[in-house]
Amino acid sequence: MENTALHYLERSLPFWSRLSPAEQRELIANTMPQRYNAGQNVHSAANQCVGVLLVKSGELRTYIMSDDGKEITLYRLTESNVCVLSASCVLNNITFDVYIDAERDTEVLMINAACFSRLLEQNVYVENFALKIAVELFSEVMWTMEQILFMSFDKRLAIFLLDETSRLGSDTLSLTHEQIAKYMGSAREVVSRMLKYFEKEGIVRLSRGAIEIARKDRLKDIL
Amino acid sequence: MENTALHYLERSLPFWSRLSPAEQRELIANTMPQRYNAGQNVHSAANQCVGVLLVKSGELRTYIMSDDGKEITLYRLTESNVCVLSASCVLNNITFDVYIDAERDTEVLMINAACFSRLLEQNVYVENFALKIAVELFSEVMWTMEQILFMSFDKRLAIFLLDETSRLGSDTLSLTHEQIAKYMGSAREVVSRMLKYFEKEGIVRLSRGAIEIARKDRLKDIL
Repeated sequence: MENTALHYLERSLPFWSRLSPAEQRELIANTMPQRYNAGQNVHSAANQCVGVLLVKSGELRTYIMSDDGKEITLYRLTESNVCVLSASCVLNNITFDVYIDAERDTEVLMINAACFSRLLEQNVYVENFALKIAVELFSEVMWTMEQILFMSFDKRLAIFLLDETSRLGSDTLSLTHEQIAKYMGSAREVVSRMLKYFEKEGIVRLSRGAIEIARKDRLKDIL
Repeated sequence: MENTALHYLERSLPFWSRLSPAEQRELIANTMPQRYNAGQNVHSAANQCVGVLLVKSGELRTYIMSDDGKEITLYRLTESNVCVLSASCVLNNITFDVYIDAERDTEVLMINAACFSRLLEQNVYVENFALKIAVELFSEVMWTMEQILFMSFDKRLAIFLLDETSRLGSDTLSLTHEQIAKYMGSAREVVSRMLKYFEKEGIVRLSRGAIEIARKDRLKDIL
């Protein structure tokens, strides 16, 4: 393993100093750089236990999917986030399935699932690290669910558009209504109807495959 | 503390043997029996950090609530379950609010939140215990959410009725449509409409305040 990758491991894993020298060597020997292309599936029910992923660059999207293909985005992981649900087979208490896709070209360090499982068995600090990350996700997922279950759709769409503009640092979003519906776990018709309402109100300007936020202040008023 | 309560602590807390004698004494000194009447609120956003609750008998229901009072039941705790979300202030990674009510007359052992917080800071096995319980809840909540978000309502209602009959060991449920709607995070009208459909199909018999499951096999066919 190259030196920069080793430094990245030390920096990203708070349990590093709690590992014995032998455990550190085992971890290093079982960690590999890996690339995913934008759109590539990283993890699914059929493709379990890829391992623990340390995101170096790019973006991973985690979602659940119904039998008929409806998706709900749970959360996104970017630089220096650690993905443990991609190793859910080693966490006995995680009994649900998620899908993980690369949203952009993504570079990760991948810790082999079998190795991580051994370390987790023998070192309580490794186990607590993985559990803590899962509990943080729990909080994020609860927030997402409350939005979906309780909020009116205008609020949800306003939040989505504001989040995207700040995430991308641009007031013009290159997204189809179909894509927005997919990300929000909604239907294209519902998204189109609300966007047209926003356009009529002068809040957004719509063009083919793009949405320009014209009045961010008015979008914030909806919240 | 009486001897039976002490035995209950030892049996319910897997980290007991990992505590120092001083930590065990501190825990005993900060644990009290507590009773809740059926319907009583145990924990809410306004009433944080009751402490960790070890259920001895009865039933606690954990739910989330929207601004306009709509409730969604996340999970139920019964005998020998441990409730950590009632001490969410001591778990840094839990950032969402839940409500907890006693569904029946309920007896618990309550570990004081400040004491549990100290133990959790100083003993990695106490932290491990609390995190594991939280992650198990995560899995339960995900299951509930997937049901709500993805399943058609006839399936959800069929599952609810089957779960209740097996939970209570009776084919007659003393529940109003209003109560079912509340437990399922739905509207009374929706529940009534589906129950009437089930009645027309000969699957249930409806009377004032009660639902008799006439054809459990047909209910199972819906799943």
